[in-house]
Amino acid sequence: MTIRRLAIIGVGLIGGSLARALRAADAVEEIVGCGRGRDNLQRAVELGVIDRYTHDVAEAVSGADMVFLAVPLGAMRETFAAMQGHLAADAVVTDGGSSKYSVIEDCRAVFGEVLPNLVAGHPIAGTENSGVEASFAELYQNRRIILTPTEATSPDALARVQAMWQACGAEVTLMSVEHHDEVLAATSHLPHMLAFGLVDTLARMKENDEIFRYAAGGFRDFTRIASSNPVMWRDVCVANRRALGKMMNHYLGEMQELAETIERGDGDALLEIFSRAKRARDRYIDGVLDSTE
Amino acid sequence: MTIRRLAIIGVGLIGGSLARALRAADAVEEIVGCGRGRDNLQRAVELGVIDRYTHDVAEAVSGADMVFLAVPLGAMRETFAAMQGHLAADAVVTDGGSSKYSVIEDCRAVFGEVLPNLVAGHPIAGTENSGVEASFAELYQNRRIILTPTEATSPDALARVQAMWQACGAEVTLMSVEHHDEVLAATSHLPHMLAFGLVDTLARMKENDEIFRYAAGGFRDFTRIASSNPVMWRDVCVANRRALGKMMNHYLGEMQELAETIERGDGDALLEIFSRAKRARDRYIDGVLDSTE
Repeated sequence: MTIRRLAIIGVGLIGGSLARALRAADAVEEIVGCGRGRDNLQRAVELGVIDRYTHDVAEAVSGADMVFLAVPLGAMRETFAAMQGHLAADAVVTDGGSSKYSVIEDCRAVFGEVLPNLVAGHPIAGTENSGVEASFAELYQNRRIILTPTEATSPDALARVQAMWQACGAEVTLMSVEHHDEVLAATSHLPHMLAFGLVDTLARMKENDEIFRYAAGGFRDFTRIASSNPVMWRDVCVANRRALGKMMNHYLGEMQELAETIERGDGDALLEIFSRAKRARDRYIDGVLDSTE
Repeated sequence: MTIRRLAIIGVGLIGGSLARALRAADAVEEIVGCGRGRDNLQRAVELGVIDRYTHDVAEAVSGADMVFLAVPLGAMRETFAAMQGHLAADAVVTDGGSSKYSVIEDCRAVFGEVLPNLVAGHPIAGTENSGVEASFAELYQNRRIILTPTEATSPDALARVQAMWQACGAEVTLMSVEHHDEVLAATSHLPHMLAFGLVDTLARMKENDEIFRYAAGGFRDFTRIASSNPVMWRDVCVANRRALGKMMNHYLGEMQELAETIERGDGDALLEIFSRAKRARDRYIDGVLDSTE
């Protein structure tokens, strides 16, 4: 599999690492970067991540046979609009957003249909750093990539995106749009909400200075994700509001029961809950994550 | 300050580290360990953490001028009962439990009063490891110790406990019982409930195997505390149910609002919440914790 010309819209950690991985695998001939920040794009050229750049989406996608969208979810629709009429007939479009329903709806809103050559996707990979400087060729090695083809998706387009990710050393899984959005709401979006919500609740309490002063190391680990990019998370919440809202209400119902169990001091019920959670975490999470890292 | 004979009931990470720190500071003459597990106590002698041991609380505290209780909160009352009638007149009793109201109530229930020589306390320190093997002399270096004297507490007893912790390199803060329990509910107990509750909620969903499979590294960090000791946490919840129940209801109210904000897709309100949380975390938490570690 060789990509003739790859257009990357948004050359940061995710887009830059895809470029580096494909170059390392000798699976791409030319890479065109596109974005707003000139310094970042120039740095990307200096680092050899991209061959050239433009600030114009239409120009970036012209003549590309593969287009990768690594823009915030809130910028997807305008990005589709900017490329309309400029895509080559055989160009495949894919993305890295963490909500898939919204990306497909953005495509439909702009093009009036879900493009057969759109393969919505989501690499389950990342670090806490951002920008092209933070990108590296091994980011996707042995990591999971979820692709969410619809009925409209062309099998050839799907096969090309699948091959692209496999060239990066990733493991590709296919999933329905709805199921992807539910799984991500549970494992990523909800935990971020809990951490943002916890820090915000404490910050709004009187004497918050003092409260934070007595927070120990565990609290820092637990709330690290509350230092994530607020704009990105606003976009994720709005984009995935259906699945995330449902998941949050489910969780809050369970927590309401836990609060009542604590208030009535029911030690047996608490021990059962905590033991079940510990077993689940020890069995699934470490096992599963260790095998992929 | 020199302790003539220190009795440590519960020779694990917390009790063992106190012993090591006081020895390193040359602030104690003799240390008697007490606990149920013979292997652990024998290992404590071999490591030089304690001089000798007994399984009998009454014997351990006899002739001690300082008694440190490092037993689970659920075992405090029976431990007070076991030492009744065996404490020397000048013996000071202190502890390391993460809830202070319950310890004071346990003392009152056994002795019919809050002992003037009881100085309830709580070192804000620990690691994920347990047992005497995990203990080390530097655990309390530059860490905060909260002491919660009541009206009944003798100033001399308080001064002796304060001096003991200062000899370990710790920074001692005085706080009311109620305030301690609220602060710990907010910064430690509540986060543990959120993590236990999240893992348990996911574990009880159908297809939980698959959900955990797509959890990324951030999820592992966030839920690490759900692998904590379930028995210990049952005890903490029951002991601090008043403050923790109140704090959980406060948090759940805020999260209910957040869920509604997400469901109506109110991006401006979400951006405000996430930005405020990020600012609070970046400003307070890293700053405060960095200065103490």
